[in-house]
Amino acid sequence: MSNDIAGYSYGDREIGHSSLSEEELEDLKVGARFTEEDVRYLRMAGEVLQGQTTEIVHLWRSEIIAHIPHLAKHSRSLDGGSLPDYLARSNRRFEQWILDTCLRPYDRTWLDYQHEIGLRHTAPKKNQVDHVSSTSHIPFRDVLSFIPVINETMKPFLGRKGHTQDEVECMHRAWSKSMLIQMAIWTEAYEESQKNKAG
Amino acid sequence: MSNDIAGYSYGDREIGHSSLSEEELEDLKVGARFTEEDVRYLRMAGEVLQGQTTEIVHLWRSEIIAHIPHLAKHSRSLDGGSLPDYLARSNRRFEQWILDTCLRPYDRTWLDYQHEIGLRHTAPKKNQVDHVSSTSHIPFRDVLSFIPVINETMKPFLGRKGHTQDEVECMHRAWSKSMLIQMAIWTEAYEESQKNKAG
Ligand code: HEM
Ligand code: HEM
Repeated sequence: MSNDIAGYSYGDREIGHSSLSEEELEDLKVGARFTEEDVRYLRMAGEVLQGQTTEIVHLWRSEIIAHIPHLAKHSRSLDGGSLPDYLARSNRRFEQWILDTCLRPYDRTWLDYQHEIGLRHTAPKKNQVDHVSSTSHIPFRDVLSFIPVINETMKPFLGRKGHTQDEVECMHRAWSKSMLIQMAIWTEAYEESQKNKAG
Repeated sequence: MSNDIAGYSYGDREIGHSSLSEEELEDLKVGARFTEEDVRYLRMAGEVLQGQTTEIVHLWRSEIIAHIPHLAKHSRSLDGGSLPDYLARSNRRFEQWILDTCLRPYDRTWLDYQHEIGLRHTAPKKNQVDHVSSTSHIPFRDVLSFIPVINETMKPFLGRKGHTQDEVECMHRAWSKSMLIQMAIWTEAYEESQKNKAG
């Protein structure tokens, strides 16, 4: 895993801490029927996606989100100008997150970092890492609505290294389960961000 | 569409009203890349699923959720006893929702009813329709974590009426997009339920 990514603070003590217990994380896995088989297929996906993450994140952010105004604005300055450094720096963390999703064990450290990433989409932490002035908050509904695009566009990349159709299906299913588990974890970050606003 | 389902109040004036505008609903569709093609494949799915909804909801609720304690408790009384009428009555509405998801136009009326269904998973409305005493609130994270199971188990049912593999894929993709759009709509219901608690 990479350590020279600006603002990437996996495992740091100063980052957010999810209010979920390890038991509640296990419940989320059980609810999604996320099993050891999925862990294995995510490992396989990690090997497949290694070397493709720049292209994938470019597709998501520069080819898709950039053309959808209500999503694009969150990577821009408040007057709509581009912030190329913000995009470039957060892109690298986004790329690393793809590999983390596939290769990291889903333990307390991972849970806390997913929480931190959730917070970085909300007022308490958005813009802070890269010291930019952009929108302060991405509505959770807009994040959720983008999940099908993440999943749909991921599939062809999973098929690019000669795996059988069945293997690609299994990698894709494991990936899709992980997405919803992560969104479930983010609900706590969004709740925390609301409380901060009220308090 | 059926009108004799107890507590099914699609289009009723007294039900919840989503705070989302029609424009925001369109944004969710754009974000998910939900297109006219998806609408067509959902219509196809509706025809395929007609007559299978009892079996599907039975699978989800009696064969899967019933065996996952942290999910099963929400259909039970507070001391863990079974509430067969509650299950039976809400099952019928759940079945109808499958067809509504496939066949209804995603307009203001539909938006408001998705909001109402979201509310029925939270304190303001859970248990009310069937006059039962059960848990008062289903955490949103547990709902989200169950989406992969809904999607995964849906696929074989979509393939049961002799459609090509490609058609099944397209129906399934349209279904999966709709799930996330509906979850995006539910975020407002969950937020509303939190405000009610605070106020
Ligand atoms: C669909 C689910 C999404 C996932 C899994 C996701 C994932 C990520 C990740 C991994 C990062 C880097 C976080 C970090 O380490 O600092 C990130 C940052 C960011 N994402 Fe997302 N994202 C999602 C949806 C969206 C959407 C829909 C938008 C915009 C509309 C968006 C805009 C951003 C922005 C602006 C940042 C930089 C945040 C900051 O200021 O630190 N994301 N996202
Ligand atoms: C995965 C996404 C889910 C969807 C799409 C969904 C859908 C529905 C629908 C359509 C109804 C009938 C609402 C009505 O017309 O009254 C319903 C009711 C209900 N659902 Fe869900 N549900 C989901 C997740 C869950 C989960 C995870 C649980 C339990 C852990 C659950 C428990 C219930 C209960 C207890 C009711 C009855 C609510 C009441 O008291 O009126 N649902 N659900």
